[in-house]
Amino acid sequence: LAEIEWNKLGAYLKETQILGSIQNTLYWDQNTGMPKKGASWRSEQLTYIAKILHQRNSSEEFANFIKSASIELLDSERHSENPQIIQEKKRNIELLEKEFNRQRNLDPKLVESLAKAKSKGYESWQEAKTKSDFAIFLPFFEELIKLRIEEAKQISEIYSPWETLAQPFEPDLTLKWLNNMFQPLRETIPSLLSAINKFKKNSWDLSPESQQNLCSKLLDEFGRNKDLVVVAKSPHPFSITLGPNDYRITTRIVEGEPFSSFLATAHEWGHSIYEQGLPSQSHQWFAWPLGQATSMGVHESQSLFWENRIVKSKSFSKRFFKKFVSEGCALNNYLELWKSINHLQAGLNRVEADELTYGLHILIRTELEIDLIEGDLEAKDIPYEWNKRYEELLGIRPSNDSEGCLQDVHWSEGAFGYFPSYLLGHLISAQISSQMERDIGLIDNLIENGEYEKIIFWLKNNIHKHGRSVNSMALVRNITGEELSSEYFINHLKTKINDFC
Amino acid sequence: LAEIEWNKLGAYLKETQILGSIQNTLYWDQNTGMPKKGASWRSEQLTYIAKILHQRNSSEEFANFIKSASIELLDSERHSENPQIIQEKKRNIELLEKEFNRQRNLDPKLVESLAKAKSKGYESWQEAKTKSDFAIFLPFFEELIKLRIEEAKQISEIYSPWETLAQPFEPDLTLKWLNNMFQPLRETIPSLLSAINKFKKNSWDLSPESQQNLCSKLLDEFGRNKDLVVVAKSPHPFSITLGPNDYRITTRIVEGEPFSSFLATAHEWGHSIYEQGLPSQSHQWFAWPLGQATSMGVHESQSLFWENRIVKSKSFSKRFFKKFVSEGCALNNYLELWKSINHLQAGLNRVEADELTYGLHILIRTELEIDLIEGDLEAKDIPYEWNKRYEELLGIRPSNDSEGCLQDVHWSEGAFGYFPSYLLGHLISAQISSQMERDIGLIDNLIENGEYEKIIFWLKNNIHKHGRSVNSMALVRNITGEELSSEYFINHLKTKINDFC
Repeated sequence: LAEIEWNKLGAYLKETQILGSIQNTLYWDQNTGMPKKGASWRSEQLTYIAKILHQRNSSEEFANFIKSASIELLDSERHSENPQIIQEKKRNIELLEKEFNRQRNLDPKLVESLAKAKSKGYESWQEAKTKSDFAIFLPFFEELIKLRIEEAKQISEIYSPWETLAQPFEPDLTLKWLNNMFQPLRETIPSLLSAINKFKKNSWDLSPESQQNLCSKLLDEFGRNKDLVVVAKSPHPFSITLGPNDYRITTRIVEGEPFSSFLATAHEWGHSIYEQGLPSQSHQWFAWPLGQATSMGVHESQSLFWENRIVKSKSFSKRFFKKFVSEGCALNNYLELWKSINHLQAGLNRVEADELTYGLHILIRTELEIDLIEGDLEAKDIPYEWNKRYEELLGIRPSNDSEGCLQDVHWSEGAFGYFPSYLLGHLISAQISSQMERDIGLIDNLIENGEYEKIIFWLKNNIHKHGRSVNSMALVRNITGEELSSEYFINHLKTKINDFC
Repeated sequence: LAEIEWNKLGAYLKETQILGSIQNTLYWDQNTGMPKKGASWRSEQLTYIAKILHQRNSSEEFANFIKSASIELLDSERHSENPQIIQEKKRNIELLEKEFNRQRNLDPKLVESLAKAKSKGYESWQEAKTKSDFAIFLPFFEELIKLRIEEAKQISEIYSPWETLAQPFEPDLTLKWLNNMFQPLRETIPSLLSAINKFKKNSWDLSPESQQNLCSKLLDEFGRNKDLVVVAKSPHPFSITLGPNDYRITTRIVEGEPFSSFLATAHEWGHSIYEQGLPSQSHQWFAWPLGQATSMGVHESQSLFWENRIVKSKSFSKRFFKKFVSEGCALNNYLELWKSINHLQAGLNRVEADELTYGLHILIRTELEIDLIEGDLEAKDIPYEWNKRYEELLGIRPSNDSEGCLQDVHWSEGAFGYFPSYLLGHLISAQISSQMERDIGLIDNLIENGEYEKIIFWLKNNIHKHGRSVNSMALVRNITGEELSSEYFINHLKTKINDFC
């Protein structure tokens, strides 16, 4: 196989990936270790890297590398080389061209302004959240919205502005398709809420040390390799990959929420194990599109799977009950633990939300975003609109912006179009779980026997190892033989409510 | 003042500093957070940054910026602008030209090989140290020596190869001058050793948590601003600056050495407070030479000052005794604490060494290095020679390489010429302490009254704020009115031994 041009392109992509992973390292440090006063210089560093990355991703040189590799590939095809590899390589080229065209259309000045605005946005959001004062964040938020709308216009694809911003997270997503997915949830979930409203929360807590110990034990249970996966604390839990053998997870302790750090750890583990399972050979390597996650919806399906299908299952409570007791948990038996970890109640916080109400948090954010980017909602009206929609959909109202519209980090970094991925993740997780059970048996049984390796093996073979070779909708279709629908998730919710009541 | 060219040069330097500080962030993370398996990709990242940095520091573009700024400066001088500022700016230009010429002479391929060899060296050293097996490190060490000798040859200054490698740490240092400084120590210290040989060490320890608490309290005592200075753990303690308002310190817990982390914290605090006190305005800013430390000898004088003159003083033991007791220290009174923290005994470990024997550790390393770079010592013979010289000078012999020649990180990163800075730091610290006492009173009294701010103010005004405007020898001369000599340090040692016995 002639691979001269291919390897040149590969070398170029590798250097880009080196820079991208440096960016990730700066981001990781910013959130886990950096002293407060370091923020402004860190913003200069991130702006600089963003500028170089944009230059590389939109350069004439890069365009030529892609073109030459593509010509060489067509030549290989004519010589009837291995058709599967040719096909995969073509997919790489196709994805590179698509991304290149996106980047190419962007004004470098806009890219620099955006990087700066993201840093300033994040910084002001932190302060605004601490002081629960949306006004501190507002001017930076307005700037971010303005710049991202400008970005969407510059890219000017066949998609609408909000759809355009959502493409990097969920390729091929349209508002119409999304509406089809979400409409049944908007109709069903509120009516299910009434069934759970009678439950009062049993308030208790665990010491930060105990929570940390339990998180450690959880990762041991799942088979974490400490030489590969490092854990730290950050204001907002996240998972990030800093190199082909360098995975990081964060968690946080929330007072009065004894499961918060535990569930966040399971969630981020799910993200991380997906990244760990991505293909890493040759044209499917780390720096090539095929070596990457196919969409954030699929990413979230992996994190939500570990959080909800594993840790919130009855058999997991049975397995881990003693460990909770030895860390000072005063519940009487594993069923109480299961009830407590699955407590269903409309709350104000997305990250702490149960499976049932979670979707409503997402619907609100998604609709607000679309209105901000495409409708006539103004940024200054976000607190009012946020609170109003919480009242309408969840029947509760934030008493301040910190527990309301300032709770999430996403908008502070200008990440519009991301939120739907969480809910799509729920749908995907439910649909593939059903297939997994047909393939390797009931998840409850697997957990009871501690067969996490078997679960990871199935996930790796059916999802992880495919990287970006197919998009999320095709992936779901290939695995389950059906189009993605909200049906499996709604059934799962109904079963859980039934079980719970 | 016409500053058009000057500002262009400044913008260029700022971008270089952004890259340099990114390099520092990667290094920080490598030592404090990175999972083991991340090492090889981190090495790729560091190699990439080193390559770009070298390109920037040796580019035609940079040369032109320096030249134009220099011409503009001469023009300002003719127009009789503020002569002191002109003088300082000239010093900036002079230092930039000097460094440029160094970089310019280096083959970019060598720079890349060196960056790779440093990462591999560090990685193999870690493994070699853990397994106490010098053979694992040897091939990478040999490569590093070869490459650094090649580097010295390419730079080909008026200095000898080892002197050339030492210049970045101690500008203007020569072997002859160094010999003059060190010879009295080589003659005096071994004879003082006999006086302390009768002391047996009183073995006790503190829990890791207690040690960590004491380190925190120590930094509180010294006035650490948590929004500015962050602390973490690493295998080898160090201090590093990641931005103009971003300082980091590490420490480590050593079993059986209850003061190890405490003294390391004081030591790294001294480095950090120097960096925090460097000038940060205009042409003396972070990215300009004048905004940087003048030499590693002066840097070490600052860290050793806080470690030895402050923390090992009687008045400090008096002030901190209760805090030690409350963390489980079983000593009976502050004098016992003072004796314990000052315990004088020949040991194998440099970092844990007392003030008296410390110099011998440095003499051995310095002489071995010079023999490796300029003499006929071969890398493979290091363990033998190391052990032999310890036997000769300190009267003790390492039982393995881990506690012998593999104990320090420096050589693993190819840092030859650094070690003498530690001992020069002792000499400088002793000589300036004497001047400090003439200026603001006995250090013991200042500590007794908790007047650390007064001490910091003196250090800042006499040392820190001068940045690189003068070299270390001129700095010492300016402060104390004398040339640097070993006399003050030797007197300090004699006083301490007297006090101790």
